Amino acid sequence: MNEFGIIAKHFAPLAKNFDGALGLKDDAVILSPQSGYDLVFTKDALVADVHFFVDDAPKLIAQKLLAVNVSDLAAMGAKPVGYLLAIMLPKSTDDKWLASFARGLSVGISKWGGHLIGGDTVSHNGELALSLTAIGEVPQGKALKRSTAQAGDAVFVSGTIGDSYLGLQILKGEIKAQSEYLTNRYHLPSPRIDLGHRLIGVANSCVDISDGLVADLCHIAEYSGVGAKINIADIPFSAAAKQLNPNPINLITGGDDYELLFTAPASAQTAIESLAKELALPITKIGEITSGAGVVVLDNSGTDIGIRESGYKHF
Amino acid sequence: MNEFGIIAKHFAPLAKNFDGALGLKDDAVILSPQSGYDLVFTKDALVADVHFFVDDAPKLIAQKLLAVNVSDLAAMGAKPVGYLLAIMLPKSTDDKWLASFARGLSVGISKWGGHLIGGDTVSHNGELALSLTAIGEVPQGKALKRSTAQAGDAVFVSGTIGDSYLGLQILKGEIKAQSEYLTNRYHLPSPRIDLGHRLIGVANSCVDISDGLVADLCHIAEYSGVGAKINIADIPFSAAAKQLNPNPINLITGGDDYELLFTAPASAQTAIESLAKELALPITKIGEITSGAGVVVLDNSGTDIGIRESGYKHF
Repeated sequence: MNEFGIIAKHFAPLAKNFDGALGLKDDAVILSPQSGYDLVFTKDALVADVHFFVDDAPKLIAQKLLAVNVSDLAAMGAKPVGYLLAIMLPKSTDDKWLASFARGLSVGISKWGGHLIGGDTVSHNGELALSLTAIGEVPQGKALKRSTAQAGDAVFVSGTIGDSYLGLQILKGEIKAQSEYLTNRYHLPSPRIDLGHRLIGVANSCVDISDGLVADLCHIAEYSGVGAKINIADIPFSAAAKQLNPNPINLITGGDDYELLFTAPASAQTAIESLAKELALPITKIGEITSGAGVVVLDNSGTDIGIRESGYKHF
Repeated sequence: MNEFGIIAKHFAPLAKNFDGALGLKDDAVILSPQSGYDLVFTKDALVADVHFFVDDAPKLIAQKLLAVNVSDLAAMGAKPVGYLLAIMLPKSTDDKWLASFARGLSVGISKWGGHLIGGDTVSHNGELALSLTAIGEVPQGKALKRSTAQAGDAVFVSGTIGDSYLGLQILKGEIKAQSEYLTNRYHLPSPRIDLGHRLIGVANSCVDISDGLVADLCHIAEYSGVGAKINIADIPFSAAAKQLNPNPINLITGGDDYELLFTAPASAQTAIESLAKELALPITKIGEITSGAGVVVLDNSGTDIGIRESGYKHF
């Protein structure tokens, strides 16, 4: 099957409800925001052996590709509108693989919204490589940024931290344990779209945790020109994580959590508590923004453990 | 250097004039069209050994990546506004390579307009793989499409056909000849932005030639529900191409021309002639759209040579 056949069979059905995609028959796609909204764009690439295993179920790879990009939109307070997919396939890819991958896209799109609106399908001499551009909508001028934290803000995080790191260690056999909850957290991130959208007007800055809690907090601090201080004792870990009795430093530097890390003034505390209740999603205060620079992590006894920045590095 | 360092050193300078890119410090970027315009999106992936050679000059690879995407925008009548770049690098990539690649991006952006507004940089165990999303602007509701050719339209093509095919054969050593003109046409496509923009209101349908003249005309015919008939004798070949006395069938099926192929009613002939003059770009009538189906290619004696569809296939 050539790339036109692949697109027609597997991908065009995912675009059928979006007029601007022209049935994926054109090389480009037309899109404009609703009146009063900005468009927001994000692009994340996923490659074999770094972001997934070659023999992972194709539908899980597809959902993860969507999820990590949708998570970037969520961090800006945006809701997904459309996706452009570039898929670089090994020449040996068969129809069954593609069908499973397309099913995964379809499941993710149903969960998180938006439409597949275009892209490119090529084969190459390498392993699977994927790049997705996700387009979201956010009320005009209201997008959350990572560069606008204020000294005195409280630092909050959604959900639990380190589950995905532990799931990956289990999958790699480096932790001898079984936990479907933890491996699912690695394979199937839950982008916090509703939370991000509701943080508009509440949070001063926001980021999604992909590189690791400490590394992503460093990004907020650096780009906002402030410092941050967090307490390990306050960081939320899941029951499944605690059961494995891991080194908490690994959990806060491990990455791939796709939870939201945000800062807000003390006056927002009540609004955030009711938001957590309404969304049935834990939101935990883990520290504060300071007028200094860098991130200080305090252990249970209040001692600076000396992490300054850590997270996944590609090079 | 990690990906943040690479982005700060090599890519952030290309984004500095575009506020919405937030200095490439965020994971997402904000963009909305000017009032009265639609945004148009295209995404093309380029991979080693298919779209370029691994040892091609990085600045040529970067320019080609931009050019093929800008050409898709040109085919819709759009002008470039922004680019999102996903770059999947072999782990061995050095700073010199990146500097040259970034220079190529900078040169292309100067020539064709727009800004680098975001993207993702990862390393992997494979060869270089690139994916670019290009965003353009087109007057609202006016984007040119490939699905709107009308029976009775004349078929036109810009520039000359087959130069890039011949350039590639020379680079591969399959044609023993030297021609900087032809190899440049392979390495450095000239997307026809001004022509595409000026064809709004003139052309009924338009496509850029990436898969090959015949294959891309087949796309117009198929998606418009019409047929087409073209004459090899009318197809414009460059002096450099003619000198090599190639089989013309290879030139019209070779691909990578990045010229515009469009259809227009007979009444537009005069407007097209003056457009060609004004832009100093040859525009040649090569055939007509019929009420049938499929593409018929006639040789110099008017005999159907029996090509129905041909072009680069990835699988």
